[in-house]
Amino acid sequence: MKQHLSQRVSGAKRSAIRELLKLTEQPDIISFGGGLPAPESFPHKELAEIAHQELMNNYANVLQYGTTEGSRTLRDAFIEWLRPQGIEVTREQLLVTTASQQGLDLLCKVFFDPGDVMFCGLPTYLGAIQAFSLFQIDKIGVLVEDDGMSIEDLEMKIAEVKLAGKQMKGIYVIPDFQNPSGITLSLEKRRQLLEIAKREDLLIFEDNPYGHLRFAGEEIPSIYSMDPEGRVIMLFTFSKVLCAGLRLAVMITSRPDLMDALVRTKQATDLCTSKLTQHLAARYMLDYGLEGHLDEIRLIYSEKRNAMINALEKYMPKDEGIHWTKPDGGLFIWVWLPDVIDTHEMLAQAVERKVAYVPGAAFFVDDTGHNTMRLAFSSSTLEQIDEGIRRLADVVKAEIVSKMVGTHESV
Amino acid sequence: MKQHLSQRVSGAKRSAIRELLKLTEQPDIISFGGGLPAPESFPHKELAEIAHQELMNNYANVLQYGTTEGSRTLRDAFIEWLRPQGIEVTREQLLVTTASQQGLDLLCKVFFDPGDVMFCGLPTYLGAIQAFSLFQIDKIGVLVEDDGMSIEDLEMKIAEVKLAGKQMKGIYVIPDFQNPSGITLSLEKRRQLLEIAKREDLLIFEDNPYGHLRFAGEEIPSIYSMDPEGRVIMLFTFSKVLCAGLRLAVMITSRPDLMDALVRTKQATDLCTSKLTQHLAARYMLDYGLEGHLDEIRLIYSEKRNAMINALEKYMPKDEGIHWTKPDGGLFIWVWLPDVIDTHEMLAQAVERKVAYVPGAAFFVDDTGHNTMRLAFSSSTLEQIDEGIRRLADVVKAEIVSKMVGTHESV
Repeated sequence: MKQHLSQRVSGAKRSAIRELLKLTEQPDIISFGGGLPAPESFPHKELAEIAHQELMNNYANVLQYGTTEGSRTLRDAFIEWLRPQGIEVTREQLLVTTASQQGLDLLCKVFFDPGDVMFCGLPTYLGAIQAFSLFQIDKIGVLVEDDGMSIEDLEMKIAEVKLAGKQMKGIYVIPDFQNPSGITLSLEKRRQLLEIAKREDLLIFEDNPYGHLRFAGEEIPSIYSMDPEGRVIMLFTFSKVLCAGLRLAVMITSRPDLMDALVRTKQATDLCTSKLTQHLAARYMLDYGLEGHLDEIRLIYSEKRNAMINALEKYMPKDEGIHWTKPDGGLFIWVWLPDVIDTHEMLAQAVERKVAYVPGAAFFVDDTGHNTMRLAFSSSTLEQIDEGIRRLADVVKAEIVSKMVGTHESV
Repeated sequence: MKQHLSQRVSGAKRSAIRELLKLTEQPDIISFGGGLPAPESFPHKELAEIAHQELMNNYANVLQYGTTEGSRTLRDAFIEWLRPQGIEVTREQLLVTTASQQGLDLLCKVFFDPGDVMFCGLPTYLGAIQAFSLFQIDKIGVLVEDDGMSIEDLEMKIAEVKLAGKQMKGIYVIPDFQNPSGITLSLEKRRQLLEIAKREDLLIFEDNPYGHLRFAGEEIPSIYSMDPEGRVIMLFTFSKVLCAGLRLAVMITSRPDLMDALVRTKQATDLCTSKLTQHLAARYMLDYGLEGHLDEIRLIYSEKRNAMINALEKYMPKDEGIHWTKPDGGLFIWVWLPDVIDTHEMLAQAVERKVAYVPGAAFFVDDTGHNTMRLAFSSSTLEQIDEGIRRLADVVKAEIVSKMVGTHESV
């Protein structure tokens, strides 16, 4: 029997990370691996109450098929929530998706033919890389600096792509507390990105899972809100601000032609998102409000972020060029280790010492980043964070020694 | 600003049916349009109880991200449910999908490059046609007879495809009470399909949403259960046997290489299906059992089916070659009208008379079927069925008269 697989998938491998993370699911491992939201942040009692009510009194609606565009109740609640944030949208500008990963899948389907170019950060979100790869998109990495994507490097890459005669379609960016680095794109660079997009007739795909998880510093307007032309398509998700298990997100575009194509494509992709989960989120927003809940989450994450920064300062060797980001929001801290270290290789030692992280290379589309790692502070307790970073620092120290003496033996 | 759309979507239009069906959502219209399960069949009280328990006691699990393969609880409950049906599977042979439409999306991604051939029925499921179209699959229609897909026609089409040098990949079939026609594939033809698939090295995609909704006649084994080679991938969905709003289905393959590609692809598509909805279905199966519930649904649908058959016999003109299927299960009856009638055109008259159906042409990949229509008996009451068919018969009679006298005036 032949292999039967499409060209699209026959080259691809299972994500090494996701496989590694399975190993780290042993209960005695302190894992900074998965970017999991804190379970203590889930408003489960309220959701239990809402679920019971909806299933008793509104079952003929929430257990039935829904429209592809999404429930009116959810879209209307979302509009009311966006308004005080200075974002005015109509119901027709919103498409409910089965979490933001589906949003990425739809973007690929609707805008990209094989070989078309997407610019994205070095590093960028792994799930986006996987979606882009599945659709044979040519992913062109752009350096990420302390204030986000390098405009200079982007200009250089655009020139190269033009020279090569490739079809540029868009820029993928996570402007706030980027996954994986925690880095935020500056206001000035947001303006520049928009100008470049206009000049080159590109779309900007603004992935915004963490924008509402700022616990310090000043808010920066979304690129979407600065765009008069409809070049920006924004992905908002409930995964990090409410809970991941609902698999719920909203895609926003002000262009009816693009929305029409997105809706048609979602019809063929999963018909509609669960109306039950949509109503859970909508009723939570209407009955309790998302803002109070967000304050609670921000407090939880801020404490955890501080605990991790403190632990890193306390335990991690300061020499050898080791440094890390100090994000004002989100779920992640990014660590650069000495160039001799390969964090993928080092993970075996870490797991042996009962601590886990995600090797950074997986987030780079250009095969660099071997000496970086992503630490999620979101789902561990304060004690686990301190102890885990202590263990990790030991692993790093041992690895440096091992590399310096030129051996590869296990610590 | 340019159009920005991919070739994949720039040709496509919104489904005319789904748009039409929106018109028919006025409350005073009796709609036989959407294939909606009967809301009175949803076990909402039990689900309300389970939802409350899971959200109170298991929230850190059900509100969190899950594994791509699907919840163990659901897969294990599913295995136990399949066993008495003579289907033995392991957990590793099951992939939970965000309803079967996602199953179709994954099949397209994993097995088809643009231009590859899929054989499917004339007529076949509209959602499948939409998914295949999105992936630029070459859909080759095969005549459907009273006992399912014509083997003779399939052989002829295979010969033609070979002659044209196209790449054949698979056969898409809904063997039990097919959507839209209600027709069931005979045991003999199931065997023949398997033989042909083996001879030509094709896969069979067995879509099985209605197999458990048989209310008369003898059960026929699934093609999957007759396949020793792993050529058959089965799609099972909870939409029609529990409720559609959970957006939950299970894909079954015994080939680990295909499962591996499907799981990788689902990772990039939506990461994972909601663990909350998975646990609702699993706990319902474990605590209450699906069989008792199925007995109830079968009774409901059997009464509705009988009511519709009776009404058709009572009201519909017998001459002019009008006839319809008399399915022993499922949700649909299929009607052939005289060749002069275009059911798409006639729908305006029907809506005016406050009754709706789906014009059959949408289910044909070869632009035929203009004189056919699909009637869903699942979501109307017995009274609505009688009254709706009475109205529809009037519309048909008037249309015949109008066509016979060669005019196109509205009735």
